[in-house]
Amino acid sequence: MSKNYLIFGFSHFFGDLFDCIQSVGGILQAVVQNVPEILVPGRASLKDRLVRLPYEVDVVELENLKLGSDQFYNHVIGFSGKAMVPLLERLSKQFHGIRFTPLAHARSIIQSGARIEKGAVIDAGAIVGPWARIGAHVVLNRGSSVGHDSEVGAYSSLGPSATLCGHVRLGENVKVGANAVILPDILVGDDAVIGAGAVVTREVLPGTTVMGVPAVRRHP
Amino acid sequence: MSKNYLIFGFSHFFGDLFDCIQSVGGILQAVVQNVPEILVPGRASLKDRLVRLPYEVDVVELENLKLGSDQFYNHVIGFSGKAMVPLLERLSKQFHGIRFTPLAHARSIIQSGARIEKGAVIDAGAIVGPWARIGAHVVLNRGSSVGHDSEVGAYSSLGPSATLCGHVRLGENVKVGANAVILPDILVGDDAVIGAGAVVTREVLPGTTVMGVPAVRRHP
Amino acid sequence: MSKNYLIFGFSHFFGDLFDCIQSVGGILQAVVQNVPEILVPGRASLKDRLVRLPYEVDVVELENLKLGSDQFYNHVIGFSGKAMVPLLERLSKQFHGIRFTPLAHARSIIQSGARIEKGAVIDAGAIVGPWARIGAHVVLNRGSSVGHDSEVGAYSSLGPSATLCGHVRLGENVKVGANAVILPDILVGDDAVIGAGAVVTREVLPGTTVMGVPAVRRHP
Repeated sequence: MSKNYLIFGFSHFFGDLFDCIQSVGGILQAVVQNVPEILVPGRASLKDRLVRLPYEVDVVELENLKLGSDQFYNHVIGFSGKAMVPLLERLSKQFHGIRFTPLAHARSIIQSGARIEKGAVIDAGAIVGPWARIGAHVVLNRGSSVGHDSEVGAYSSLGPSATLCGHVRLGENVKVGANAVILPDILVGDDAVIGAGAVVTREVLPGTTVMGVPAVRRHP
Repeated sequence: MSKNYLIFGFSHFFGDLFDCIQSVGGILQAVVQNVPEILVPGRASLKDRLVRLPYEVDVVELENLKLGSDQFYNHVIGFSGKAMVPLLERLSKQFHGIRFTPLAHARSIIQSGARIEKGAVIDAGAIVGPWARIGAHVVLNRGSSVGHDSEVGAYSSLGPSATLCGHVRLGENVKVGANAVILPDILVGDDAVIGAGAVVTREVLPGTTVMGVPAVRRHP
Repeated sequence: MSKNYLIFGFSHFFGDLFDCIQSVGGILQAVVQNVPEILVPGRASLKDRLVRLPYEVDVVELENLKLGSDQFYNHVIGFSGKAMVPLLERLSKQFHGIRFTPLAHARSIIQSGARIEKGAVIDAGAIVGPWARIGAHVVLNRGSSVGHDSEVGAYSSLGPSATLCGHVRLGENVKVGANAVILPDILVGDDAVIGAGAVVTREVLPGTTVMGVPAVRRHP
C-alpha cells in the first residue's frame, strides 16, 4: 500500500508536531513549498483532520507502531530521538529513497547561513543562529535558541527555552533540559544529559549527566 | 453615563497593556476585529492618546479606581489578579452582560487548539502551546511560554520568560516568577508562589512558596 | 578615500551582525529605510557579498583594524563595547558628523514608546518593552528581553535569553550573562558583571560581579 506521508511521534508531542505542520500551511508546503491546508481545530482524532488532504497520509503513534512490509511512504515527518534510530533505519531500508523531511515552524527564526538536516523539527519561537548546524532528527523545542556557529549533533534535543551560546558543540543524542544554558565554545559529548535550568560552564564528557548553577556532574 | 470600554490596571503595567492593544491595531480590533488606530507615542497622558477613538473610553489606574453607580461599560480590558476579584465581581454585578475581553499581543504565538479565557492578557513574544488552556484573567508576561496541553488556572500570572513544559497544571492565583521553569506533568496548587529562576521538579502544594534550583519549599 | 559605510566587529559576531542587516533588507534600509539586498549565503568572505551594493562599504574585523587618516565614512554599524570606546571616539573625531546607526533585527520586537540610541544592535527574537530606553552601543543578544520602563546604559550587553523585568536600571558597560534574570526595580551599577543564569534580587554595586540563584557577590 503506497502512501505519500508517514507522520509519527509519541502521542505526547503530536500537538507540537501538528502545529508546526499547520503553521507552514500544510504538509506539502513543509515538504515542497506547495500549499494545501490542514485544519486541526480539536485534538480528539488527528487522523480525521487530514482527510481534506489530496494525498495519502498515515498518522502513527509510536507506542502502537506496526509497519507491514507492504507499506510505502515517500516522506516521513516526526519527532524522533535515539530510541527511534532502529525505526528510522528500518524505514530507510524498507523504503529506499524515502525522505525524512525537516520541519521549521513558521514562527521560528532561522538566521543567515544556518543548515537544518533531515528529519529535524524546529518548534514555534525557536531561534537558529547564523551559520549554526542542526543535525538530523534533532528537536528544538519551543522558545529554544542555538547561537551563531553552534552545532547540534544528530538525535539531540533542546527542551523549551533552552539556550546555546555561540560556538557550542553538542555531540549526538544529547538531551538539554528546559531553560538550561550552555556558555560559548563549550563541548558536550555524545549521550550527555543537561538538567533543566543548568548553567553549563565547562566541557561535559560523553554519557554524563550534569545539573545545577553552575552545572556539576551528578554521580548516580 | 454609558461608555464602551473600561481599560484598567496598575499604572506600573499600563505600558504593556497599551502595547498589546496597539499591536492588534486598536481596542476595537482586540475586541471585535474592527480596526481603528491608537497612537501611544509617549507616556505622559495615556488618556489623551485615546481621544481619536470613535467610542467612549475610560482609562483607570486601579490605585485610584472609583466607579459610580451611574457608569456603564460594554467591554473591560485589563491586567488583573486575585486582588482584583472583588472589583471584577462588582463590575459583573453592576454591569450585567459586561464582557471581559481577552487580549493577545500581535507578536505572541497562539498554537493550534489553544484556548484563552475571558480577561486574559498574552504579552509580546509569549507562546501558548498546542491545546493549552489559559484561564480567566491570567497574565502571560513577555517571552513566557506555556507547553502543549498545559493548563493555567484563573488569575495566575507568569513572569517574563517563565516556561511551563508540557502537561503542567497550575491552579488558580499561582504566581510564577521571571524565568522560572516547571517540568512536564507537574501540578502546582492554588495560591502557590514560584520564585524567579526556580526549576520546579515536583508537585507544589497549595499556598506554598518554592525557590531555587531545584526548587525547594521556603519555610517562612 | 570616502566610503559610505564602515561595518565593524569582532569576527566572532559577524554572523549575528550580518543577519541583522540582512533581516531588514540591507544596509540602506537599516539606515534610511531605502532597500537594497545583501545576500550572505556562506561565510568565507563577507566582503565579497557586499560587492552588489551600490555604495562603498568596508568590513573590518576589529582584531585587524587600521584606519588611515585618509579614510572617511558616513555611517558606522557594528557590535561594540567599552573596549571600543577609544575607537568610537577616534572615529567621531576623525569623521566629523559620522552616524553610528542603531540596528534592530526584523524579528525583534520593539514595543510602544521604546527608545534605541545610536549604535545599539538588537538581535533576532529580542524584546524591548514599552518605554524602555536602550543606550548607545548596547548589544541585546538573541532572545533577550528588556522590561517596560527599564533602562540599559551605554556599552552594556545582554547575553542570549537574558531577561530584565520592569523598571530595572543598568548603568554603563554592564555585562549580563546568558539567561540571567534581573527582578523589577533593581539597580545595577556601572561596569558590573552578572553571571550566566544568575537571578539578581537586590542592588548590584558598580564594578562588582554577582552569580548564582539568588545572585551573590563573588569575591576575587
